[in-house]
Amino acid sequence: MATPTENLLDWLRDAHAMEQQAEKMLKAQAERIEHYPALKTRIEQHIEETYGQQKLLDECIARLGSSPSTIKDMSAKLMAFGQAVGGSMMSDEVVKGAMSGYVFENVEIAAYTVLIAAAKSAGDSKTQAVCEQILAQEIAMADWLRDHLPELTEAFLARSAAPDVEAKR
Amino acid sequence: MATPTENLLDWLRDAHAMEQQAEKMLKAQAERIEHYPALKTRIEQHIEETYGQQKLLDECIARLGSSPSTIKDMSAKLMAFGQAVGGSMMSDEVVKGAMSGYVFENVEIAAYTVLIAAAKSAGDSKTQAVCEQILAQEIAMADWLRDHLPELTEAFLARSAAPDVEAKR
Repeated sequence: MATPTENLLDWLRDAHAMEQQAEKMLKAQAERIEHYPALKTRIEQHIEETYGQQKLLDECIARLGSSPSTIKDMSAKLMAFGQAVGGSMMSDEVVKGAMSGYVFENVEIAAYTVLIAAAKSAGDSKTQAVCEQILAQEIAMADWLRDHLPELTEAFLARSAAPDVEAKR
Repeated sequence: MATPTENLLDWLRDAHAMEQQAEKMLKAQAERIEHYPALKTRIEQHIEETYGQQKLLDECIARLGSSPSTIKDMSAKLMAFGQAVGGSMMSDEVVKGAMSGYVFENVEIAAYTVLIAAAKSAGDSKTQAVCEQILAQEIAMADWLRDHLPELTEAFLARSAAPDVEAKR
């Protein structure tokens, strides 16, 4: 048994950990990309947005009288590290990386969709407004990645078919 | 170095394994849901669609002179098993389950978006048409889950706040 506010707070702490994971993952991706400059630029822009989101979530959690969970944040960062290492070993790293990025944006979209409903149920209009603002940024990033996935795939396949050209990053 | 058709075939085998994982995951979810009948019904409908998708992918892979990867299929099924066990231990299982379902649909959306571009590059119009058909089903499922996530969250929070009522499934 738990009140809407208790559930809301629990989910806000999950979201905070998720944005820690996002930061690590996006940084690892941006650092490795060499031959796909548009993707690199868009990821770097989203890293800046992610910092702002972390700050906003911090404030919501503090307003509810709590603080982010160090354990959740740490394990999220570790998970991001594992993904980055795993990804770098694939011959189609840039395509799988963009797919993972798109999927992760949708993890965030689902989380903020739930948080908005939970903030409404808990009568917390400030948290609701914050989550609506962040959701719009996540949707924009997801849409960008999905829209650019076909041309990224084509560019990868062209490089992959050419001799003496690196395709994966 | 790899030709577009080699990359296409590799990604088709990934997609086949992904649909094995989808089947296991959806079945585990549908079996456990008790108090959220609309979600259960929609998942059961998507399980039927998933069988059709597996068959279509089989045919594409066979047409390219290959067969699905037993190792990839097996490890995908194992992953689905791990997720089902992990999910059942959470107090907000039904919400996390619907979120995971939405995220997994987006894994599939990303995969078929890449496959469509790859089939075009390889000049394989049959595979392209199949992937476009499957993509439409995945988008419909993703949209349904996202549209119903707020009311599912509200229903969960109401059950969670009530004494002597199970909320998680």
